[in-house]
Amino acid sequence: MRAGGVTMDLIKRLNKPTGEKIMTQLEYARQGTVTEAMEKTAVSEGVSAETIRQGLAEGTIVITQNLRHQTISPLAIGKGLRTKVNANVGTSKDRTNIEEELAKVGAATEAGADTIMDLSTGPNIDETRKAVIKASTVPVGTVPIYQAAVEMPEKKGRAMVEMTGDDLFHVIERHGEDGVDFITVHCGVTLNSVQRIKKEGRLMGVVSRGGAILVEWMHYNKKENPLFESYDRLLEIAKGFDMTLSLGDGLRPGCLADATDRGQIQELLILGELTERAWAKGVQVMIEGPGHVPLQQIEANVLLQKRICHGAPFYVLGPLVTDIAPGYDHITGAIGGAIAAWAGADFLCYVTPSEHLRLPTVDDVRQGVIASKIAGHAADIARGLKGAMDKDNSMARARKALNWPEQIRLSIDPERAQKLRESCLPKESDVCTMCGELCAIKKVATLL
Amino acid sequence: MRAGGVTMDLIKRLNKPTGEKIMTQLEYARQGTVTEAMEKTAVSEGVSAETIRQGLAEGTIVITQNLRHQTISPLAIGKGLRTKVNANVGTSKDRTNIEEELAKVGAATEAGADTIMDLSTGPNIDETRKAVIKASTVPVGTVPIYQAAVEMPEKKGRAMVEMTGDDLFHVIERHGEDGVDFITVHCGVTLNSVQRIKKEGRLMGVVSRGGAILVEWMHYNKKENPLFESYDRLLEIAKGFDMTLSLGDGLRPGCLADATDRGQIQELLILGELTERAWAKGVQVMIEGPGHVPLQQIEANVLLQKRICHGAPFYVLGPLVTDIAPGYDHITGAIGGAIAAWAGADFLCYVTPSEHLRLPTVDDVRQGVIASKIAGHAADIARGLKGAMDKDNSMARARKALNWPEQIRLSIDPERAQKLRESCLPKESDVCTMCGELCAIKKVATLL
Repeated sequence: MRAGGVTMDLIKRLNKPTGEKIMTQLEYARQGTVTEAMEKTAVSEGVSAETIRQGLAEGTIVITQNLRHQTISPLAIGKGLRTKVNANVGTSKDRTNIEEELAKVGAATEAGADTIMDLSTGPNIDETRKAVIKASTVPVGTVPIYQAAVEMPEKKGRAMVEMTGDDLFHVIERHGEDGVDFITVHCGVTLNSVQRIKKEGRLMGVVSRGGAILVEWMHYNKKENPLFESYDRLLEIAKGFDMTLSLGDGLRPGCLADATDRGQIQELLILGELTERAWAKGVQVMIEGPGHVPLQQIEANVLLQKRICHGAPFYVLGPLVTDIAPGYDHITGAIGGAIAAWAGADFLCYVTPSEHLRLPTVDDVRQGVIASKIAGHAADIARGLKGAMDKDNSMARARKALNWPEQIRLSIDPERAQKLRESCLPKESDVCTMCGELCAIKKVATLL
Repeated sequence: MRAGGVTMDLIKRLNKPTGEKIMTQLEYARQGTVTEAMEKTAVSEGVSAETIRQGLAEGTIVITQNLRHQTISPLAIGKGLRTKVNANVGTSKDRTNIEEELAKVGAATEAGADTIMDLSTGPNIDETRKAVIKASTVPVGTVPIYQAAVEMPEKKGRAMVEMTGDDLFHVIERHGEDGVDFITVHCGVTLNSVQRIKKEGRLMGVVSRGGAILVEWMHYNKKENPLFESYDRLLEIAKGFDMTLSLGDGLRPGCLADATDRGQIQELLILGELTERAWAKGVQVMIEGPGHVPLQQIEANVLLQKRICHGAPFYVLGPLVTDIAPGYDHITGAIGGAIAAWAGADFLCYVTPSEHLRLPTVDDVRQGVIASKIAGHAADIARGLKGAMDKDNSMARARKALNWPEQIRLSIDPERAQKLRESCLPKESDVCTMCGELCAIKKVATLL
């Protein structure tokens, strides 16, 4: 079998004795083994290693770490854990500057991003990815189909739609070999789910790049999506590196009006089934979700994903609660992300102020990460996560004590807080220029 | 009676024939009269004048317009209407520049603020207030106790705590005479409610300036809050100008840990009773609310206010859903504001990125207003307000059509959207540099 052959080949390339079986964190968890990765993530999450093991075994937690990427600390994402934040970086054909993308990696992790996705579509994608993996101190994800599509005209002199399943799977293997920790694969963009969109009608069609590539490919080739059709081959590759599959929502809504429509939910149903197939093969899975969703539909989207996908971690993009705020979509995404994470989403993909307008700058990346971190943190408090409010309480005490160095230190972005305060210093050094001597805290300090 | 005397005096100063009775919008509504203000606000809200009249009569809607401030369009706030946004401006002793404050008024209204509050505490408060009222195209609110307190040492050579009820009420009259449309009055900061805070204990005590001034005053004078004690006198003045009372939450929590505690709720209970007393005298009322509130307590806070205050409009500050984000509190406030307005809050007081750090700059004001506008808009959509999603749908159509001028035009801040796009133009003019030729929308344009 081709798939089996790939795995054996991978085992060799992983420098394991040919006979040795590769075990994923999911498989270790199922057989009751607590791995070093489980122990480490338990410490950083403040839970027991058994909690992590059990979540992994049930599929409600993933540890995103490629067997070949042992330089980073392992990261656990899922039920009962701190909400995680991902930052997208990567070149586009219109703007390719690897140094700038690496600066974004630095800005993102410094601001607290838990993972980085390299979404490069410019030239030298392999080189960029390797550089991002080398530079990142956190797990790295990719969307291999971007590279497979872009390389068709550029390296193979053929049209994107002439891509074969092999073209795509070979790229996925390369990503695995380079140590990518999780990959977005749009396996639920099928002839059937796309048909549902056509029948119902949509304001904005498909807005996922991966989704659009596959819709175009299926239309041209009159064939089923190879990521769906050859899903077992994908599972073999993923398993060979313990690379977590992030089942992409290629049919996610691109505007509020399209949210939670039949196409979106049809894709989710397929992803639910594929989740079980991945679990059966010992492959870790999370599910990607929208997108553009009106406030009042967010909780339902989370509940639906949790039920349909049997508790697999939910990785949402935003969600953006209005379509009219380009330039401020980090804010629309923070509103949606807070509500989603409160309802049970586990992993927030940041949105930057540049969304819908341009490739983000380094500063956009910082702004986007911080907005999502705020959302996740607010949700962790709302969900009653142990210790989530400790830092808030420390900040309250620092404010009560008019202790400015401590307030700055406890800030989510101490540099910015310091800069704003310094730009306009009060005459009395213990207050601020908002209220000056009328400072309420100072007034009642001895009375309450 | 003193209070009656004031009213007769006011009637004279309003240049009304001495015998003529001043009628408030609430009184007109109760007797079944649809005023011009009701008609105008009905048009701008897209509801019937009868809806406005009925809401006014029930107390669930206010029209914030001083009888002496006829240069602005009247504004209706309350049940079933678009969520409104207030922007605070005003000098502090540490930073007094009237021109800068007027620039903030301009920036705020340009960004879509529905009201302006002048919270000046620097020198020349009368002059500043008159200038703000003159410059503003929207209703103006104030917090008269700031001026009364600041003028004690500055103009009367006495300590703030030596302020008399007369000192305070005379300032309130001056504000009414100048055309202030609504005033914050912390009538629920009473000996009793403060006692409840002391008994339960709080991390941060009192963080409202007005609240702190009154706590200090009551402690020093061993007397009840004059705004509570002489509430009828306040009602007489308010009625004389149809100045809406915004019953302030002087005991609002200053950190998540203090949210929804006994002191806060005791104050709310008092405000509920005072709401009924205002209505009985024909005075319009709204209720101010927190502040710092964890996500999961926001809805309960709104439901409680609506029940306790019999449906009076709710005017919330933020709420801020975490304490650790100084420099980004426009975002923490947008998250809280969206959830509050979705749950039924009617009026959002903006929070700027400078909150907790300094007096805001002109740009901070713009950022704060836009963040709150996003929150209110997302909530209006969630509440199913008629037509709320029209602009979002137009944006979706413009995006589908890759019509960039239209996307910019429909943006909440066209100038910023244009600037971001122009800063990084794509090679193919119909896409953007995020995806370039991989633009999903473009790919599937003819397929879906």
